[in-house]
Amino acid sequence: MKFTINRSAFTAKLNDVLRAISSKTTIPILTGLKMVVSPQDVTLTGSDADITIQTVMTTEDDAFGLTVDQAGSIVLPARFFSEIVKKLPDQQVTIEVSDGFQAQITSGSASFTINGQDAENYPRLPEIETTDTVKLAGDLFKEIIGQTVIAVSNQESRPILTGVHFVLEGTQLMAVATDSHRLAQRKVQLPEAIAQRYDVIIPGKSLTELSRMISDGSETVELRIAENQVLFILGETWFYSRLLEGNYPETSRLIPESSETTVELNASSFLASIERASLLSHESRNNVVKLTLGPDANLAKISGNSPDVGNVEEDIQASSLEGAGLEISFNPDYMKDALRSFGQSEIKIAFTSALRPFTLVPTEDEDNFIQLITPVRTY
Amino acid sequence: MKFTINRSAFTAKLNDVLRAISSKTTIPILTGLKMVVSPQDVTLTGSDADITIQTVMTTEDDAFGLTVDQAGSIVLPARFFSEIVKKLPDQQVTIEVSDGFQAQITSGSASFTINGQDAENYPRLPEIETTDTVKLAGDLFKEIIGQTVIAVSNQESRPILTGVHFVLEGTQLMAVATDSHRLAQRKVQLPEAIAQRYDVIIPGKSLTELSRMISDGSETVELRIAENQVLFILGETWFYSRLLEGNYPETSRLIPESSETTVELNASSFLASIERASLLSHESRNNVVKLTLGPDANLAKISGNSPDVGNVEEDIQASSLEGAGLEISFNPDYMKDALRSFGQSEIKIAFTSALRPFTLVPTEDEDNFIQLITPVRTY
Repeated sequence: MKFTINRSAFTAKLNDVLRAISSKTTIPILTGLKMVVSPQDVTLTGSDADITIQTVMTTEDDAFGLTVDQAGSIVLPARFFSEIVKKLPDQQVTIEVSDGFQAQITSGSASFTINGQDAENYPRLPEIETTDTVKLAGDLFKEIIGQTVIAVSNQESRPILTGVHFVLEGTQLMAVATDSHRLAQRKVQLPEAIAQRYDVIIPGKSLTELSRMISDGSETVELRIAENQVLFILGETWFYSRLLEGNYPETSRLIPESSETTVELNASSFLASIERASLLSHESRNNVVKLTLGPDANLAKISGNSPDVGNVEEDIQASSLEGAGLEISFNPDYMKDALRSFGQSEIKIAFTSALRPFTLVPTEDEDNFIQLITPVRTY
Repeated sequence: MKFTINRSAFTAKLNDVLRAISSKTTIPILTGLKMVVSPQDVTLTGSDADITIQTVMTTEDDAFGLTVDQAGSIVLPARFFSEIVKKLPDQQVTIEVSDGFQAQITSGSASFTINGQDAENYPRLPEIETTDTVKLAGDLFKEIIGQTVIAVSNQESRPILTGVHFVLEGTQLMAVATDSHRLAQRKVQLPEAIAQRYDVIIPGKSLTELSRMISDGSETVELRIAENQVLFILGETWFYSRLLEGNYPETSRLIPESSETTVELNASSFLASIERASLLSHESRNNVVKLTLGPDANLAKISGNSPDVGNVEEDIQASSLEGAGLEISFNPDYMKDALRSFGQSEIKIAFTSALRPFTLVPTEDEDNFIQLITPVRTY
């Protein structure tokens, strides 16, 4: 096995594959990076058993300046190998395995020889045999992930809640996540109807990692769903994730259909106020902020009080305030996550009572995106 | 106590004082920030008992937009208070203590009330009664710190070695540090002779913190040395550090007077080679890199070998290589620290034998700056 490649283009691809590789793994060979060299291309694979990332660099793509002298394959220690490649002195790097499983890495005046392993011992990739493909703009898919993954549970006690529930049917994609204290739901129209209905739960961690690989303004992301795997195709890079098994709880009934009090305000300026108030609540024993609305239409304020530390009070700028007066307390960290997902938008927050979940929606598109937060009982 | 001040200028000064304040302290009031307000100015003080930083903001300095309504003093929880000030909505902030030790912080629509403590309970500052002052350009003083503090010991077993030894006499300042494996020494000519001889040991941690406060291209740093304290004056900010007690070991005899082999090379390109070789040595059990010089004048290379991991070899570009052939092994991390202190300079490395300390000096100024490293015996 021997090839020469442009070092910075190679480094970028190594970084992509490294996202899947963890140094904490129960399968030692998965700390390695698999390299398979054919006369036409070099394929890199990294995996932590949950996520597998595979990328192909072809001789046809000038960006890689790839010359293959001899086909072959090897598994090399991933972090160590990529650190070496990053620090090499020359523009080009040559990687050669002449005998056994030792790779020689040469660049300019520097030469490393590092011990690797037989690529035959690397686990097989999952096979995804579906031809049914869903295509979405990269930006939009990144937005869907960002808006829903915040509500995913971090606790392994109910593993199913650590994923985002995707339902694809006809021309609609719905993504929903809840950790039982809050919920985030986003609906998107697909460019064309899909043949089959899909109902899958994708681990939040996989989506977060995938989202980091989608560069801003990037091209289409292609989804292919199989029995227990999902494949995302981003150009020459294939991202596999296992699916969570089980039935996701019914979430549609959690969203209240009517409200008693509504307030409209700017998400980003309200976020700044909540961030200030949370400075105090984080110092307190119970991490709670109180929102007071009406009954006077001019009254909208947030407040927090902790006898040990002090108190905070801030008037809120609301563009509209309707309905019954209300005092409601909530975890400001849930509110911050939800508000960030709206960016600079104007939003409408709708309340039923001080003890019932309340909802946040963008005023310009109330039907397709909703955040829900359960309040905290303070007495 | 009541004053109003420009929030961003105040934040910058808070950040300076916060450098001295640790949340891990055995004296609880030192987690606080002391504020003393007079009709003319506001003085902030922070301390961890080793370092004390004090800064004054005057009504005369327009940058602060300071208006004092009422004099007074208070100690406020430092981190919490500064986080609040950073996140407030308005350009201005008003701080008021009306009764007891509660401070009200108001800015725009936001208002915080936080619990403080009586400033009378804050420890007194050390008194420095000397009038003997040494003035140095900020850039130069930062350079002296950066070049010597790298050789300070991190181990508390010999506390005296955790400091940098400063000797000031006539028109010369000498700074030297050693952790017994390496040594760094810098000499500087003072602009004018000082009346008294000073021989003090300043904790490395204090110098590192001080160095961060000296902005690039900043003005003069003024030194005043007393019995067990040193004071550095940077404009309106006073930085106090305790001195280490005891006698610093005699270091001048450690520096060899002659050499058998010398090599001249560029510090920054040699640093890049050592950084690469250290990737391998860090994976190995013994963190050692070998340098081979001559006897052929064209032979200069570094290498490393670890049977478990692999090996590395790199030819070095030397502009001159003289004297006997040599193989010498050393800790690459010591070499990296030393090389970084020379920046882009050409340097001369002089060796006596494979087991004796070797020295690095800039070729353009061999007398005033020296780094010394003890090699590692590998057999």
